[in-house]
Amino acid sequence: MIVVMGLGHTKQQLNHLVAMVEKMGLSTHIIYGTDRTVVAAVGDKRMVDKSALENVPGVEKIVPILAPYKVASKEVKREKTVISLQPSGAKIGSDTISVIAGPCSVEDRGRLLDTAEVIKQAGAVGLRGGAFKPRSSPYSFQGLAEKGLEYLAEAREKTGLTVVTEVMTVKHVDLISRYADVIQIGARNMQNFMLLQAVGEQSKPVLLKRGMSATMEEFLLAAEYIINAGNPNVILCERGIRTFEEYCRNTLALSLIPAIQRVSHLPIIVDPSHGTGHVYLVEPMCLAAVAAGAEGLIVEVHPDPEHAFSDPGQQLSPEQFQQTMTKIARVAAAVDKKL
Amino acid sequence: MIVVMGLGHTKQQLNHLVAMVEKMGLSTHIIYGTDRTVVAAVGDKRMVDKSALENVPGVEKIVPILAPYKVASKEVKREKTVISLQPSGAKIGSDTISVIAGPCSVEDRGRLLDTAEVIKQAGAVGLRGGAFKPRSSPYSFQGLAEKGLEYLAEAREKTGLTVVTEVMTVKHVDLISRYADVIQIGARNMQNFMLLQAVGEQSKPVLLKRGMSATMEEFLLAAEYIINAGNPNVILCERGIRTFEEYCRNTLALSLIPAIQRVSHLPIIVDPSHGTGHVYLVEPMCLAAVAAGAEGLIVEVHPDPEHAFSDPGQQLSPEQFQQTMTKIARVAAAVDKKL
Amino acid sequence: MIVVMGLGHTKQQLNHLVAMVEKMGLSTHIIYGTDRTVVAAVGDKRMVDKSALENVPGVEKIVPILAPYKVASKEVKREKTVISLQPSGAKIGSDTISVIAGPCSVEDRGRLLDTAEVIKQAGAVGLRGGAFKPRSSPYSFQGLAEKGLEYLAEAREKTGLTVVTEVMTVKHVDLISRYADVIQIGARNMQNFMLLQAVGEQSKPVLLKRGMSATMEEFLLAAEYIINAGNPNVILCERGIRTFEEYCRNTLALSLIPAIQRVSHLPIIVDPSHGTGHVYLVEPMCLAAVAAGAEGLIVEVHPDPEHAFSDPGQQLSPEQFQQTMTKIARVAAAVDKKL
Amino acid sequence: MIVVMGLGHTKQQLNHLVAMVEKMGLSTHIIYGTDRTVVAAVGDKRMVDKSALENVPGVEKIVPILAPYKVASKEVKREKTVISLQPSGAKIGSDTISVIAGPCSVEDRGRLLDTAEVIKQAGAVGLRGGAFKPRSSPYSFQGLAEKGLEYLAEAREKTGLTVVTEVMTVKHVDLISRYADVIQIGARNMQNFMLLQAVGEQSKPVLLKRGMSATMEEFLLAAEYIINAGNPNVILCERGIRTFEEYCRNTLALSLIPAIQRVSHLPIIVDPSHGTGHVYLVEPMCLAAVAAGAEGLIVEVHPDPEHAFSDPGQQLSPEQFQQTMTKIARVAAAVDKKL
Repeated sequence: MIVVMGLGHTKQQLNHLVAMVEKMGLSTHIIYGTDRTVVAAVGDKRMVDKSALENVPGVEKIVPILAPYKVASKEVKREKTVISLQPSGAKIGSDTISVIAGPCSVEDRGRLLDTAEVIKQAGAVGLRGGAFKPRSSPYSFQGLAEKGLEYLAEAREKTGLTVVTEVMTVKHVDLISRYADVIQIGARNMQNFMLLQAVGEQSKPVLLKRGMSATMEEFLLAAEYIINAGNPNVILCERGIRTFEEYCRNTLALSLIPAIQRVSHLPIIVDPSHGTGHVYLVEPMCLAAVAAGAEGLIVEVHPDPEHAFSDPGQQLSPEQFQQTMTKIARVAAAVDKKL
Repeated sequence: MIVVMGLGHTKQQLNHLVAMVEKMGLSTHIIYGTDRTVVAAVGDKRMVDKSALENVPGVEKIVPILAPYKVASKEVKREKTVISLQPSGAKIGSDTISVIAGPCSVEDRGRLLDTAEVIKQAGAVGLRGGAFKPRSSPYSFQGLAEKGLEYLAEAREKTGLTVVTEVMTVKHVDLISRYADVIQIGARNMQNFMLLQAVGEQSKPVLLKRGMSATMEEFLLAAEYIINAGNPNVILCERGIRTFEEYCRNTLALSLIPAIQRVSHLPIIVDPSHGTGHVYLVEPMCLAAVAAGAEGLIVEVHPDPEHAFSDPGQQLSPEQFQQTMTKIARVAAAVDKKL
Repeated sequence: MIVVMGLGHTKQQLNHLVAMVEKMGLSTHIIYGTDRTVVAAVGDKRMVDKSALENVPGVEKIVPILAPYKVASKEVKREKTVISLQPSGAKIGSDTISVIAGPCSVEDRGRLLDTAEVIKQAGAVGLRGGAFKPRSSPYSFQGLAEKGLEYLAEAREKTGLTVVTEVMTVKHVDLISRYADVIQIGARNMQNFMLLQAVGEQSKPVLLKRGMSATMEEFLLAAEYIINAGNPNVILCERGIRTFEEYCRNTLALSLIPAIQRVSHLPIIVDPSHGTGHVYLVEPMCLAAVAAGAEGLIVEVHPDPEHAFSDPGQQLSPEQFQQTMTKIARVAAAVDKKL
Repeated sequence: MIVVMGLGHTKQQLNHLVAMVEKMGLSTHIIYGTDRTVVAAVGDKRMVDKSALENVPGVEKIVPILAPYKVASKEVKREKTVISLQPSGAKIGSDTISVIAGPCSVEDRGRLLDTAEVIKQAGAVGLRGGAFKPRSSPYSFQGLAEKGLEYLAEAREKTGLTVVTEVMTVKHVDLISRYADVIQIGARNMQNFMLLQAVGEQSKPVLLKRGMSATMEEFLLAAEYIINAGNPNVILCERGIRTFEEYCRNTLALSLIPAIQRVSHLPIIVDPSHGTGHVYLVEPMCLAAVAAGAEGLIVEVHPDPEHAFSDPGQQLSPEQFQQTMTKIARVAAAVDKKL
């Protein structure tokens, strides 16, 4: 941590600051520059709240040097984390692209089983589908709840696909971890810290979606909560950020993929369905994500998008999904990966 | 709802679209324009997911006409909602500005009681303080939990101030509603729909903070969840949005105040502490918020900001708070309000 | 255009609005909905300023139906615009990916000629390099001016590459169009309307970079200025938008590529150097852009990035560029294109 | 400047970095921390491009310590800049709030003269009005050009108001500086560096609007261009930034006022008309801006907003302006200022 002293600070203020820093267990180096005096604080500063020093008289600003996350970082674990998905056996983080597909919401048994068959044949390894749905409006369809989980489990038995579904509240963690193979934390809950804690205390892998306005640092700190609670199997998922852009629901930030891979050992996948909000943008963004190095995709597919109960505008039809998968396989090969 | 047909759509596609809309229980009017054909759909469309029509062949886009919120809107209730706070008797939504103040986190009993006395004398009506703290990093101070609630209750007894504290998970709603007079939903939980539901099912007023990247529409839909669940006493709170700005933690969007007041009957207050993140910005933004029509303020005050356990950089000292209150009173008078 | 009347408007207000709209040369259809009355205005509304009606008494809001651009749109010209670059003969908008490369700034003759040879051998068709540089700080290197243009022309003679360079002011348009084969409008000048007009009045193709906070609509309206002034050869270029993200200089919005291709006939290329600001992000974003359907790339390459006069952090070394080109060729083939 | 070395860098890499920094004329201090080695570079670094070091092998990142602006900063000039406006005699930067008002565009002589009279009586000191208009669409009204300037000059003669009008291109600087008392640089030209240079070379005060996505640092660097070119009389103007908010055209960032006042000696005013885009938001934002410490306002007023040629939705009627001025006077008094 670097403390930058303001113009015109007094010697007494500098001494007071140095004393404060040293009381935090850090050692100090004072550097007298041409325009500014700075104090470098050396030691483990992850526990120190930098804003504690910000209002100390004479201080202009505090510049952190270390990222605040630790166990999610390559500094602590250099080799990539590879997560095995049950029962499909897929390995997220390997050189095989894992595709998870399925409807936005689980709507009825027959359709879900059909969709599962179709996506399995097209090469997907996981089946997604919301049983409990976070909806912006209280008037929208809220999901089938446990009944939806049962249908997902039945689809798994028939197809061997890994079941991925979202948990919305601490109270449901047990229930959902009984049915699901991967527990999803939605973007709106990325900083629901008690929920992060709860999924960290169970053993199923967690698919953690980036919050709509989360920085990379906050995203990795959210993963850090889960890992710290005992669960190292966190799959990160970029799903678009909120910007001023108007032609898409969110702006998909694909450069996050190499950025995460540079600092963290955790695998990262992409959700182009929520990340764009429009069917016609999904395929190009699937291909772009794979080319950029994504380790998997999560894509919405519905047997009859026109009549879907939620987000019909962003779900591919089975035919569209099959075509997209063929193209994904070609792009994957071009970057030395498999589908 | 207006459905805009694409260039070159067929008559069959138009008929199919019209049939779909009518099956939703809406009536249709077709308007043949110079460049475009549009279909106006008339009826109660709040239950209709507009994206359901977006992928219908021949459709270019869907334009909603009505806002999706209802009970939070002036269309349903024209008179302003005035919320009485217990035990202080303050009325948020009246022509008196209500100021809630206190430390970011409850840290120890003595300091909290002292702070409560100081802010009471300066003219505050409510005492804020986090017992359970949402922290971006798992390594930061997480709050005193129930012990913190007890201290708050004791401070209320001594001062008559209204106690405002945050709930972070459904499981704690009962506990917190036993101690607090107003339950706060933090920005990170604005779309934690199960928590909204839960605080809607209890009777204490709810202070709902705007999410960091929530639109006005999403903010009012979150309030709608609470009202629909049975609790009409929702106080909205603008606390800054995430933008590219670098000199402040968040960009405080004060034009939201008159915008909300135009469409909703709910009172709106402002949190300049989180909304800026820096002490030197808090006072000017308090004054600006009152001038813009805010019905209250929630401000962080700490007896010794330098040694606060959380967010020290944004907490006023008692002296700073007293000075700010004096100025707030003058600006309030200039816009025909009282403190 | 749809005019939405507010709740409680009077019949007189509705009549007044209808009269105003008809005076604009539009015909009107009134639709009485369940909650709202709306007036559909039919006719060519591109000349009508929608905000003209916004304050008319009784009006709640105006909803435009048509996009405001015309000649940049597929509605006016359905076939794709293919732009031939001289003297390289490259065709932007065909199934061949065109790569333009070179240093951020032209710095000296020898290095520029060397760089041109290297990028030519690696498969580039165009040479970029700034002679006049827009720099945020007046203390930064501002370019070699006409001397830089002469070096670019010399490099063209030796290599046959197409020369692309930026114009910053109307006064330089003549000078630069004498030397360059493609004139670039930088992001900061995307809404410098007099400059758009001036490059529209000369005949060299224009590379138009998207403004840092420009919507797709504004971007196409800027192209519309150029086309309307007489120059149909506009190459659009996505170069990242300003968001809250902190790991990159800008957020590269790759979904803009298919979005533009859906509504406009103009070709679109991508600048991953400015679009990310960091060398390690350039290659993955080149590959992602091609996979997403970009028709070309513009990439910064410098013989000795460490000693570059501007933006050294985002320029590839010649070796990095060659490796990236090899990978681009593979991804291009995977989406049925050539390099 | 602080150079943070990456984990696992070699001693040779550190030596190379130190040599590079010293070659830039800076001296170095190496600090060996618990997790990281950092090199503090001391000396005048304003001329050094920080990104020059970013790709040096072994370097993780560069952290600048000093702001890049100099002459716009309080470090160089501590006393506030007060700018006298001719012929009104108003002093921007004093304890009197200066209000500039007038139509978005100059449309006809009679109306302009009437508007000038009205705003003068209401207490304005300046008359604004565009003769050359930057319009997003080439189909919108582009202004009356020199004829408009003549009307403005005539209005000045009749009323003694200071004339403020926008320059859009270098070529017009002479023409406009002959007619105007204050030359405005619009938001879209904030980084049109040649235009900044040109208005810096003439002697009329410059009203510099913040770009729609400009950081505070970029804003002050734009001012720095003008001051460096010879003109110290720069009035900064906040006019809203582009965010995801949908109820307003821009998000007015009022906390910029105290933030600028903390680091710069330049006066700052606010444009609530462009800053919100809607008449009903203008008055509350005028009051809020004054309460936050703005040194002036620039407000759009039109004798017949419904029939204005540009931006009718954001222009006040003369009656609305008079009422707003009365309220501004009261809020100004509450913060110890005058109108």
